[in-house]
Amino acid sequence: MKSVMIINGPNLDLLGSREPEIYGSLTLEDINKGLESTANQLGMELIFHQSNLEGRIVELLHEAGQHCRGVVINPGGYSHTSVAILDAIKSISIPVVEVHLSNLHKREKFRRRSLTASGAAGIISGFGQLGYHLALRALSEMI
Amino acid sequence: MKSVMIINGPNLDLLGSREPEIYGSLTLEDINKGLESTANQLGMELIFHQSNLEGRIVELLHEAGQHCRGVVINPGGYSHTSVAILDAIKSISIPVVEVHLSNLHKREKFRRRSLTASGAAGIISGFGQLGYHLALRALSEMI
Amino acid sequence: MKSVMIINGPNLDLLGSREPEIYGSLTLEDINKGLESTANQLGMELIFHQSNLEGRIVELLHEAGQHCRGVVINPGGYSHTSVAILDAIKSISIPVVEVHLSNLHKREKFRRRSLTASGAAGIISGFGQLGYHLALRALSEMI
Amino acid sequence: MKSVMIINGPNLDLLGSREPEIYGSLTLEDINKGLESTANQLGMELIFHQSNLEGRIVELLHEAGQHCRGVVINPGGYSHTSVAILDAIKSISIPVVEVHLSNLHKREKFRRRSLTASGAAGIISGFGQLGYHLALRALSEMI
Amino acid sequence: MKSVMIINGPNLDLLGSREPEIYGSLTLEDINKGLESTANQLGMELIFHQSNLEGRIVELLHEAGQHCRGVVINPGGYSHTSVAILDAIKSISIPVVEVHLSNLHKREKFRRRSLTASGAAGIISGFGQLGYHLALRALSEMI
Amino acid sequence: MKSVMIINGPNLDLLGSREPEIYGSLTLEDINKGLESTANQLGMELIFHQSNLEGRIVELLHEAGQHCRGVVINPGGYSHTSVAILDAIKSISIPVVEVHLSNLHKREKFRRRSLTASGAAGIISGFGQLGYHLALRALSEMI
Amino acid sequence: MKSVMIINGPNLDLLGSREPEIYGSLTLEDINKGLESTANQLGMELIFHQSNLEGRIVELLHEAGQHCRGVVINPGGYSHTSVAILDAIKSISIPVVEVHLSNLHKREKFRRRSLTASGAAGIISGFGQLGYHLALRALSEMI
Amino acid sequence: MKSVMIINGPNLDLLGSREPEIYGSLTLEDINKGLESTANQLGMELIFHQSNLEGRIVELLHEAGQHCRGVVINPGGYSHTSVAILDAIKSISIPVVEVHLSNLHKREKFRRRSLTASGAAGIISGFGQLGYHLALRALSEMI
Amino acid sequence: MKSVMIINGPNLDLLGSREPEIYGSLTLEDINKGLESTANQLGMELIFHQSNLEGRIVELLHEAGQHCRGVVINPGGYSHTSVAILDAIKSISIPVVEVHLSNLHKREKFRRRSLTASGAAGIISGFGQLGYHLALRALSEMI
Amino acid sequence: MKSVMIINGPNLDLLGSREPEIYGSLTLEDINKGLESTANQLGMELIFHQSNLEGRIVELLHEAGQHCRGVVINPGGYSHTSVAILDAIKSISIPVVEVHLSNLHKREKFRRRSLTASGAAGIISGFGQLGYHLALRALSEMI
Amino acid sequence: MKSVMIINGPNLDLLGSREPEIYGSLTLEDINKGLESTANQLGMELIFHQSNLEGRIVELLHEAGQHCRGVVINPGGYSHTSVAILDAIKSISIPVVEVHLSNLHKREKFRRRSLTASGAAGIISGFGQLGYHLALRALSEMI
Amino acid sequence: MKSVMIINGPNLDLLGSREPEIYGSLTLEDINKGLESTANQLGMELIFHQSNLEGRIVELLHEAGQHCRGVVINPGGYSHTSVAILDAIKSISIPVVEVHLSNLHKREKFRRRSLTASGAAGIISGFGQLGYHLALRALSEMI
Repeated sequence: MKSVMIINGPNLDLLGSREPEIYGSLTLEDINKGLESTANQLGMELIFHQSNLEGRIVELLHEAGQHCRGVVINPGGYSHTSVAILDAIKSISIPVVEVHLSNLHKREKFRRRSLTASGAAGIISGFGQLGYHLALRALSEMI
Repeated sequence: MKSVMIINGPNLDLLGSREPEIYGSLTLEDINKGLESTANQLGMELIFHQSNLEGRIVELLHEAGQHCRGVVINPGGYSHTSVAILDAIKSISIPVVEVHLSNLHKREKFRRRSLTASGAAGIISGFGQLGYHLALRALSEMI
Repeated sequence: MKSVMIINGPNLDLLGSREPEIYGSLTLEDINKGLESTANQLGMELIFHQSNLEGRIVELLHEAGQHCRGVVINPGGYSHTSVAILDAIKSISIPVVEVHLSNLHKREKFRRRSLTASGAAGIISGFGQLGYHLALRALSEMI
Repeated sequence: MKSVMIINGPNLDLLGSREPEIYGSLTLEDINKGLESTANQLGMELIFHQSNLEGRIVELLHEAGQHCRGVVINPGGYSHTSVAILDAIKSISIPVVEVHLSNLHKREKFRRRSLTASGAAGIISGFGQLGYHLALRALSEMI
Repeated sequence: MKSVMIINGPNLDLLGSREPEIYGSLTLEDINKGLESTANQLGMELIFHQSNLEGRIVELLHEAGQHCRGVVINPGGYSHTSVAILDAIKSISIPVVEVHLSNLHKREKFRRRSLTASGAAGIISGFGQLGYHLALRALSEMI
Repeated sequence: MKSVMIINGPNLDLLGSREPEIYGSLTLEDINKGLESTANQLGMELIFHQSNLEGRIVELLHEAGQHCRGVVINPGGYSHTSVAILDAIKSISIPVVEVHLSNLHKREKFRRRSLTASGAAGIISGFGQLGYHLALRALSEMI
Repeated sequence: MKSVMIINGPNLDLLGSREPEIYGSLTLEDINKGLESTANQLGMELIFHQSNLEGRIVELLHEAGQHCRGVVINPGGYSHTSVAILDAIKSISIPVVEVHLSNLHKREKFRRRSLTASGAAGIISGFGQLGYHLALRALSEMI
Repeated sequence: MKSVMIINGPNLDLLGSREPEIYGSLTLEDINKGLESTANQLGMELIFHQSNLEGRIVELLHEAGQHCRGVVINPGGYSHTSVAILDAIKSISIPVVEVHLSNLHKREKFRRRSLTASGAAGIISGFGQLGYHLALRALSEMI
Repeated sequence: MKSVMIINGPNLDLLGSREPEIYGSLTLEDINKGLESTANQLGMELIFHQSNLEGRIVELLHEAGQHCRGVVINPGGYSHTSVAILDAIKSISIPVVEVHLSNLHKREKFRRRSLTASGAAGIISGFGQLGYHLALRALSEMI
Repeated sequence: MKSVMIINGPNLDLLGSREPEIYGSLTLEDINKGLESTANQLGMELIFHQSNLEGRIVELLHEAGQHCRGVVINPGGYSHTSVAILDAIKSISIPVVEVHLSNLHKREKFRRRSLTASGAAGIISGFGQLGYHLALRALSEMI
Repeated sequence: MKSVMIINGPNLDLLGSREPEIYGSLTLEDINKGLESTANQLGMELIFHQSNLEGRIVELLHEAGQHCRGVVINPGGYSHTSVAILDAIKSISIPVVEVHLSNLHKREKFRRRSLTASGAAGIISGFGQLGYHLALRALSEMI
Repeated sequence: MKSVMIINGPNLDLLGSREPEIYGSLTLEDINKGLESTANQLGMELIFHQSNLEGRIVELLHEAGQHCRGVVINPGGYSHTSVAILDAIKSISIPVVEVHLSNLHKREKFRRRSLTASGAAGIISGFGQLGYHLALRALSEMI
C-alpha cells in the first residue's frame, strides 16, 4: 500500500457551514470519507490532517517527507502568502499536488496567485471535492 | 448575558513595555480589567484571549462562532497579511469588530491596509484602549 | 459646555435616498437629531455643517480650530483625494475624528485609503450612524 | 454518447519535438489516441481540434456551444492575453475545463496568470498528458 | 543555396502609404526586391511571406522550421503581445532574427518591450529597410 | 452614396444569446437591420462584416481604407490588447469610430483601457445598439 | 417637454480661446445655442450650467435629480479625480451621459481613465461639439 | 505698471500658526507686505488673492488671464491632484510661476510630484517667503 | 557568562537534506555544535531553539527579551512576510542580529526584501554557517 | 567676500549648441560671465566648475564644503539617478541650491523626480539662465 | 576617409575572460582588429576608445561630435541607467548606433530597457562581435 | 600572505564628519588602521583604496582580479544603481564581500535594494566599522 498524506489548511475544518455558496455543503469529514474508495482502487492508504497553523503544516510536510509517498494539500489562505510552506514543499522529495475547491482565477485578486503551487508538481482548482479525487489519480501516476 | 470574545493578537501581551510612545503604557491586563465595567453596563460577559499564533486565532474565531454573540479583535501584525484570519472571520456568522490602538493611516505603508478588516463589520483605529470600549458599544447595537 | 463641530462632506445631504443599501435609510437630519442626546450626556454642544465644496470644508475646519474643542468629520468622497483637507486637519490643534458610514475596506479599491485620516486622531468606519456616536465618545476622552 | 470537444491551441501541433524537457516527448496524436479509452469508459465521444489562430479557437468554442456537452481546452500561449477567448468561453453555457501540460506557477511571470481560466469551470496544470484525462473525469461529473 | 524565410507581420502590406514619416516611402515589394542582390551575394534563396494573422505567422514559423535554414521576421504589432509567436520561435531549431523598421526605444512605451525577441537570436531596430539586409548578413554567419 | 464599413469583432456573432444582462437580447442581424434606416437618412451605404480573427479585422480595415469613406468598429475583446488593429486604424486615412455596447468604465479593470481607441476619431460606449446609430451620425459630420 | 440639464465643468467657460487646437474655436455659448434645435426636435427643454467648482457640480447634479429627466455632463478636469462627483451621479436616479470634446484615449495618461464615467450610463468622447448632440439623442432613448 | 496676481491656495491663510516648523512663523499678510518693495523696484502692481476653493482658483486664473501680465501661484495641496487648475494655467497665455514654501522633494511622496507645475513656466521650491520674491524677479524677465 | 538565544525558523530543522546546493550539507545540529567554541571564546552561553511556527518565534523573542543579552535569528521564510516577528523584534530592547545562509540578493525577487531585518541591528547574508559565527562576534561588540 | 561654488554637470559644456530649443542658445561661458555682476552686487566671489564625471562632482562638493559658503549646482542628467551626489550634498554643512534650465515637470517622466534635490535647500527649475541668478539671491539670504 | 569612433563602455576591457558563456572568448583587441577590414571596405577610418567612466564616455561623445562622422557605441552597464550618456548622444548631430553583444531581451529584467538607445539612430543586439560589423554597415548608409 | 583589497566608494572619505548619527565618528583612516591587526591575525595583507568615481571602482575591481585573493567593498551610493560595478564584480573570479556601515533595511526605500550585492559572495550590513572585520573573517574562510 502506498501511503499518501492529505493535508487541509486553515478554515477547512468549517467546510459545510463556511460560505457554502463558494465551498459547497459537504463537511471535510464527508470529503475524506469519499476519498477512501478512490484510494483503495489506486492501492493507496490515506493519512488525514487538518491544521489552522502555518507552522504545523510545515511540520506535517516534513513528516510526510519521511513516511509517505505523496501529498495532497489544500493550503487554504496560506497558499497566497506562505514562503515557509513553499520552502517545506521544496524541502521534501515526494510529489505534492495542490488542490483548491474553488477556481482561484475567478476570485479576488489576492487569491489568484498561489505561491505554494510554484513548489508543487501541479495544481487542480475549481472542481469542488472532485479535485481531491483527481489529485489522487495524478499522484498515482507519479509514485 | 451576551457572551463576547476579546481576541488580542501577536505582541499585544507585551503592552506597557512595548514601544510605549506608540502603544501607550497600559498592560493588556489593565485594558481588559477596564473593559469589565463597560461590559456590565451593556449586559455582556467577556471572554479574553491573547495569542501570538495565527492559526490559534483562526481557531478562537471558530470557537467564538459557536459559543459567542460577537467578537472584538485586534489582529496586530496579522491584520496586514493573513488571508487565513480573514477567511475565519467570514466563516462565522456573528459580528466581528476590529480594533487597533494606533491610527494605521499614520504609520508605515505596509500597516495602512487591513486585509482582515475587509471581513469585519467595522474598524476602529487610533484611540488607544478607548477603541475596545467603543467596539463593545458598537457590538452592543448589532447583537 | 464643550463645543464640537460635526462636518459632513459631499453627497451626505442626500442620505436616506442615496444608495440606501450602502448608506442606510436615515436622513442626515435624522442622524444629527439622534446625536443630541449623546452630546448632552457628554456635556457637548454640537454645531452642524454639511458642504459639498472641498474648499468650504477646509474653511470649516479653520473655523472649528478657532472656536471649538473638537471635530467629527465625514469627508465623503474627498477622503481619498484631498491633500487640502488633510493639510487643514493638520493646521489646527484640536482633535479630529473621522467617521465613515460604510466599512471602507469592503469597497472599491480607491475608497480603501483615507488620505485625510492620516491627519486625524483616529478613524471609525462601518457602523452606520452609530459611528458618529462612538466618535463623540472618543472626542469626549480627548478634550 | 456525450459529445466533448478537445481544443488545443497554438504550437501544440509541434508536441513531441517542441522543447521536450518542458512539454514531454509525446505527440499531440499520441495524447489524443490515449484519451479514447478514458472517453469510452465515461461514455463520451471526443471531437479533436487544433488551431494556431486565436479567432478560429473562438469559433470552435461557438460550435461546441451548439453541438457538444463540454469542452477541454489548452489555449497555449493565448491563455495569458486573449480577452476574445475568455469572452467566447463565457458566451457558451456548457462547462469548459482548461488544461496545461506544465505547471504555470513554475514558469515565467507572464505565464502565471491565465486570463482565459477566469471563465472556465476549473483548471488543471502541471501533470503532462494526464491532465487531459483528469479533465475528462471532471467534465463527466458536471454534464 | 541556403533557403531563408522572410516573414512580415500585420500592416506591413501597407508600407509606403502607412505613416511614411515613421515607416518610410518604400513598399514591401520594393524592400523585398532590394533584398535579392544581398541574398545572391550570400548564397541564399529567399521565400517571402506577409500575413496579418497571428496564427498564420505561427504556422509559417513551423513551416520554416522544417524547410529553411533561417528566418528574418518583423512581427509588427504582435511583437509586444504574442506569447504564441514567441513559443513558435522557441519551438523550432533554426536561427530567427527580428527586425523593426523604426527604433522601438524611441516610440510609445508599449512598443519598447519585444516579447517575441526574447526567443530570437538577435534584434535589429531603427534602420528602415537596411535592417533586413543586416539581418541576412547576421543569419549568414549563423547558418 | 457614401460607403461605410461596419466591423464587429470577436463573439459579437453570438449577440442575443451571449450574457444578455450585459449585451442585450438583440442579435447582430437585428442591430444591422436597424441601422439601414439611419444610413438611408444620412445618405450612406453600409457594408457589414463580423470576424473573430484579429488579422482578418486588420485586413478589413485595409479594405475599407481603399473603398470606403468611414468605418464603425466594435473590436470586442481585441480593443484592450491589439497593437495590430491599432496600427491598422492608424494606417488608413478615413475616420474610424469605435463603439462598445457596454460602458467599459463600469467593467473589469482590463476592459477599461481601449488601446485601439487611441487611433480612432472618437469612442462611444455604454448605449447598447444605439451606439452604432450615434456613430453613423458622428461619421456623417466627418466625411 | 422633457427637462434636461447640461453641466459643463471647469475651464469650459474659456472655450474658443483655450488651446483651440485641442478644444476647437467655438465658445461654450455657441455650442449651447447649437443644441437648441436638436433639443426641440427631441422634445427636450435644456437648462445650462457651467461651474468651475467641484462641489457646485455635485449640487447641480442633486438639483437635476429632483427636477430633470436626464443630464449631459462634461466634468472636464474633475473627470479623472472626483470621487465626489462620481458619488453624486450614483446618488440620483436619472440617466447621466458623459461627454468629452477630445478623445481621452489620445491624450496624457492621467486623462485616459474617467472615474466619473463609471457612474454614468455611457460616455461619448472625441467628437467636439457634436458629442453633446449625440448625448441628447442617447438620453432621448433612455427617458 | 505691470499688473501681477499673487494667488495663494488652501490653508495658506493659516500661515504663521500652521505647522511653523515647516511653513515658518510669518503670516500671509506679512509675506504679502514684504513683496510690495520688490514689486515697486520691478515696476509691478500686485493683486493678492487667497482661496481654499479649487474652483475659485480656476476662476482667479481666468481673471488674471484677462487683466494681468503674469501670475505667481502657490496652489498648496491642490498642486498634487488638480487637473482643473493645470487646465486653467494652460488656458491662459500669460506666464505663471509656481512657488512652494517648503522643498517638495524632501517631503511625503504624494507631495513630490506637482501636476500643476507641468503647466507653469517654472517652479521655485524650498526657500520660504523668499520664493515669492524670486518669482517676481523671474516674471519680470518674462513680461 | 552572557546568555544569547539562537533562533532558527521554519524548515531549518531539515538542513543537510534540504536543497543542499543552496543550504549546504551540514545539519542544524552540526551548525549549533560548531558555534560552541566561538561562544566560549567570546564568553557567551548559547540557548538553541528551532520552530516552524511564526507565533512561537514571537514568543521566543519575548522570552529572550527577558532572560538574554542578545539574539541571533534566522527567520527563514517568515523574513519576507511577518509583521508579527518584526513587531516582536522591536518590542524587546536587546540587540538582534539576522542571519541567512544564502545571499538573499541572488535569489527570487520575493526573498530580496527582509521585513524582519528592518527591526534588527544588522543582517549577515550569504556566508553559510559562517554567518552565525560572524553574528556572535557582532553581538559580542554590542552587549 | 563670500565664496560660492557654481557646479555644472554633464553635457552642460555643450550649452549653446545642444538642443537649443530646450536649453537656449547661450554658452556656459556666457551664463557664467553674466553671473559676475549679480555676484558683485551680493558681495560674492564665484568659483566655476563643470564636470561630466559623477565622482568628480562628488569631490567638488567636498571641496566646497571646506572652502566655500554655498553652492549652486545643476547636476544635469545625474539629478535623477545619483545617490552618490545626494550623499555628498548631505555630507557638507553649507547650503546647496539646485538649478535646472528647463522645467523638469514638463519633460519625460524619468526627468521629473530629482533625487539630488531631496538633499538641497531648494530647487529652481524652468527659468533658463535666470535660474542661476535667482539661486545666488537665494543663497545670499541663507549665508 | 570617413572618421568613425568606436566607444566601448565599462567592463568591455575584460572581454575574453569575463563570463565567456555570455560574452564570447574574443578580446576587445581581437574584435577591434577584425573591424579594420570592414572599415576599409566601407572607406572608414576607425578611432577606438574604451572607458569604464560614465563621464569620460560623455566626453568621448562630445569629441566625436566635433571630429567624426558617426559613432558605434556599446555603453555596457550604463545603457540601462545613464541619463547623462543619453543626453550626450542627443547633444551631438552625427548618427550613433548602439551595439550589444548579447540579446538584451533574453537577460535580466533590468537589462531589457536601454535608456541610451532612445537617443540612438538604431540598436543591434545579440549577434556577438558581428554586431559591430553590422553597425558599421548601417552607419555607412547614413553618412 | 594573502593580498586583499579594501575598496571604499563615494563620500566615504568624509567619514567622521558626514552625518555622524548614521555613519559614526571614526574617520576612514581610523577604520583602516583598525583592520590591520585583524588582517595580521588572518595572514592577510591589505591594500586600501577609496574613490568617488564609479568607473575607477570598476577598474580597481579589475586590478584586484589580477593581483589579489579577495575584495572587501563598500560601494556607498553606487550600490543601488550601478550595473557597471555589478558587472565588474561578476567579471572577476575572486570572492567579493560587500559591507555597509548602516542597516540598509532601516533606511530610505531606494537604499534597501543592493544591485551590486547580487554579484557578491555575501553582504554584511548594519554593524558600523565592525562589519569590515567580519568581512575579513568571511573572506578568510573562502580563500
